[in-house]
Amino acid sequence: MDLWFTENHTNNVRFGVKIKQQLHSEKTEFQQIDVFETHEFGKMLTIDGIIMVTEKDEFVYHEMIVHVPMATNPNIKNVLVVGGGDGGTVRELTRYKTIEKIDMVEIDKTVVDVSKQFIQQTACMLDDERVTLFYQDGVKFMKKQQDKYDLIIIDSTDPIGPGEGLFTEDFYADCYKALKSNGIMINQSESPCYDKERRELIRANQKIKKIFPLVKVYQFYMTTYPSGYWLFGFNSKGIDPIANDNINNWDNLDLKTKYYNTDLHRASFMLPNYVKEMLAND
Amino acid sequence: MDLWFTENHTNNVRFGVKIKQQLHSEKTEFQQIDVFETHEFGKMLTIDGIIMVTEKDEFVYHEMIVHVPMATNPNIKNVLVVGGGDGGTVRELTRYKTIEKIDMVEIDKTVVDVSKQFIQQTACMLDDERVTLFYQDGVKFMKKQQDKYDLIIIDSTDPIGPGEGLFTEDFYADCYKALKSNGIMINQSESPCYDKERRELIRANQKIKKIFPLVKVYQFYMTTYPSGYWLFGFNSKGIDPIANDNINNWDNLDLKTKYYNTDLHRASFMLPNYVKEMLAND
Repeated sequence: MDLWFTENHTNNVRFGVKIKQQLHSEKTEFQQIDVFETHEFGKMLTIDGIIMVTEKDEFVYHEMIVHVPMATNPNIKNVLVVGGGDGGTVRELTRYKTIEKIDMVEIDKTVVDVSKQFIQQTACMLDDERVTLFYQDGVKFMKKQQDKYDLIIIDSTDPIGPGEGLFTEDFYADCYKALKSNGIMINQSESPCYDKERRELIRANQKIKKIFPLVKVYQFYMTTYPSGYWLFGFNSKGIDPIANDNINNWDNLDLKTKYYNTDLHRASFMLPNYVKEMLAND
Repeated sequence: MDLWFTENHTNNVRFGVKIKQQLHSEKTEFQQIDVFETHEFGKMLTIDGIIMVTEKDEFVYHEMIVHVPMATNPNIKNVLVVGGGDGGTVRELTRYKTIEKIDMVEIDKTVVDVSKQFIQQTACMLDDERVTLFYQDGVKFMKKQQDKYDLIIIDSTDPIGPGEGLFTEDFYADCYKALKSNGIMINQSESPCYDKERRELIRANQKIKKIFPLVKVYQFYMTTYPSGYWLFGFNSKGIDPIANDNINNWDNLDLKTKYYNTDLHRASFMLPNYVKEMLAND
């Protein structure tokens, strides 16, 4: 059988993945959710036709979204994940014994249910006793939080559809309010290579700069995302992800990782000139 | 018109680029050469159906293949480029006034001619007075060189077809012999993400380790190459690309770059754990 999934990275670039079989397809009130078994990437979750997670390369995304803030501040105890229904971010967080509580607010329960049924590799720790799942709109949830979290991770889809509200200045201000004085906010920041993602990268960065005193961006390689080059934002009330002695102690935790290490942590903040320039000019 | 170029990154992954028009198509005794005008990437040169150069992202590849060794040793005066018929590597080299002589050995003159005709962005400096072009087999050329070059850049295609001989232990030994005592060899090193490139990455690395005392690998983002994540090898008779005070002086040269900077230079050697492990285990 010659069955191909195709994602349009732009109107003029497309990425095709050969499919063994479609495992699930469901339209919720929020979005279209599909799961495929692929030849190259193992199981693959797509939302509205965009690749979210594959078993082959999800480790890169989830290690980088979690270990960078956790190595920066090992005293993080109370964490909020916004989105992240596949569970990969929660899985990496639960590896830290020092974390006491993980709240996850996911607007679409079906993403969690489908991930639990088909992608145990990421969903495996969603039942950890420290995890509380809230099936709510992250925007509304955040309005009610104050001085509560050491770390907020915005593990969102693109700023189209249900993820849109997670890219607004109001939302970032609510995140700031929800964070304790040592707080860190990590946000999925798109990519500088193609027009659409570049526009969102710059817009989000400009908005966050109005609210957080320390705003940086870090990079990683992601084979199944458009261009293969992707960014997270590291934003804090002051704590720095590079000039920081805590990072040296991360190796003592003895966490085995496939992508992350503390040299790469620092290196991931060293951006190409064209990316630095697009984030400097407004 | 809906005309698409498709490259199979693996048997199960493909990358499609929308074409405005095909500008050239020619079969030489060595390979199939095509030039396209694309919507997303500007002009694009393919060899045997594989994307070699696009106007949009070639700067990443050519800056990283040249400025990393040049910042490591600013006393480089005599350079050999093997392959690189598009001219992008030579273009970056000619920006250094301190370089006295650039030899380029390209097996297929047609690549140079076609690049000069259609892709001036990369071919623009091939007529620089310091440049000497040899249209010969790089393998044979190298056998005759001894203690001559400060820097050899192997800017090759994949190890299939005419590029194959540039991935052998004999060839690397000849490069070593052709280098002066402070010599550096940079080699196109494929990628760790997909099986085919990973195999070649590991094989080349193992071969080079038998010959060069200092063997490292560095990374960059390359949208139009398979997986978007690509590597070069940095190999030398002793000079280190990181523990090296010369790098700090590079900024004084006042060369404007779109990708390279000296922070990124050091950061590019900080590899993910899975890459370090695949290069450590033999």
